[in-house]
Amino acid sequence: MNNQLYDVIHRRRDVRGQFTGEPVPDEVLHRVLSAAHAAPSVGLSQPWDFLVVRDVRLRGAFHDHVQHERATFAATLDGEAAQRFARIKIDGVLESTLSVVVTYDADRGGPAVLGRHAIADAGLYSVCLAIQNLWLAATAERLGVGWVSFYREPFVQDLLGIPTGIRPVAWLCLGPVTHLEETPDLERHGWRRRRPLAAVLHHDRWGAHPA
Amino acid sequence: MNNQLYDVIHRRRDVRGQFTGEPVPDEVLHRVLSAAHAAPSVGLSQPWDFLVVRDVRLRGAFHDHVQHERATFAATLDGEAAQRFARIKIDGVLESTLSVVVTYDADRGGPAVLGRHAIADAGLYSVCLAIQNLWLAATAERLGVGWVSFYREPFVQDLLGIPTGIRPVAWLCLGPVTHLEETPDLERHGWRRRRPLAAVLHHDRWGAHPA
Repeated sequence: MNNQLYDVIHRRRDVRGQFTGEPVPDEVLHRVLSAAHAAPSVGLSQPWDFLVVRDVRLRGAFHDHVQHERATFAATLDGEAAQRFARIKIDGVLESTLSVVVTYDADRGGPAVLGRHAIADAGLYSVCLAIQNLWLAATAERLGVGWVSFYREPFVQDLLGIPTGIRPVAWLCLGPVTHLEETPDLERHGWRRRRPLAAVLHHDRWGAHPA
Repeated sequence: MNNQLYDVIHRRRDVRGQFTGEPVPDEVLHRVLSAAHAAPSVGLSQPWDFLVVRDVRLRGAFHDHVQHERATFAATLDGEAAQRFARIKIDGVLESTLSVVVTYDADRGGPAVLGRHAIADAGLYSVCLAIQNLWLAATAERLGVGWVSFYREPFVQDLLGIPTGIRPVAWLCLGPVTHLEETPDLERHGWRRRRPLAAVLHHDRWGAHPA
């Protein structure tokens, strides 16, 4: 009975190169965004917004910005890492059908957001829970999602007219894909390997690892 | 085919009062934590750790701290809000079977974490994606999860021996429940109502809402 959920969780990939650009039916997009909107949030503040970006000029301008930030990061790498990075595609902004930009409004539900007085970032956490719901729903709908994080937040705010005080949290590329890779891109390209679960498990206190 | 995923996403609740304290089989906990560990992460950094806290003294000390923070928050509320808040249970730390504390290690995968040079919080975002995987997997396993956020991070670090530089992100209560409520607790108690999806949707640019 739980097979589908686990299947989706483990099949889900961060997609860069497999987008086809085919249309996403409105009802599918609605199911995916409704899943995101059903996420838990601190004090039921639901502090997220979703900008569905289809405009090719907006996506083109963002893509140019991403390429600039790619060069900025590449310049920090030494020889071997630089060579590995050169092989890695970091975004599918132009090839994917559309983008969903997810933002955080710290004022929503205020001034007294239940559960946020001691942890200022709790609202930001809520937005990320919505993003993971979106990602899993899209995977179940046989769509790919790619989270692009090579950008400066003020650039995206300016590009999309996002008001001061609202923070862009994610630029997600979305759309049909030829397939999902079995192994994450960064592992396939030798950038980094996944760790076993046991390495990050502790019993009661930090450092008490299972036998 | 996607019904189970959507069912889980929409049935999921933030549980406070319905924990039974019954055992969680090891293989179930392993599936739930494996689901968390399968989350996407910036630069494949997997910057999370999971502390499975069963020790009753540790949970009791945390519960006392939560009560203190509850009083701190209550003191900021005016008459009507204070009355509403008084009816709301904010944690099930003692009644639930166990807790899972999720942390963030900003150094993991460094110094050059691919995708984090422009957005320092991207690693924190990854941890939250893992938390939502955990939450959905637990829901599918007919367990409840309650995210408690009435605490100060240094208290939890000290209580569980979490090293400096590792940040607690979530204290999650976990275990079998009598049932999941259909309506979120905060809505049932009149604290706040959920907004419709249409209120948070924008087309291309901020403020361009669907017709």
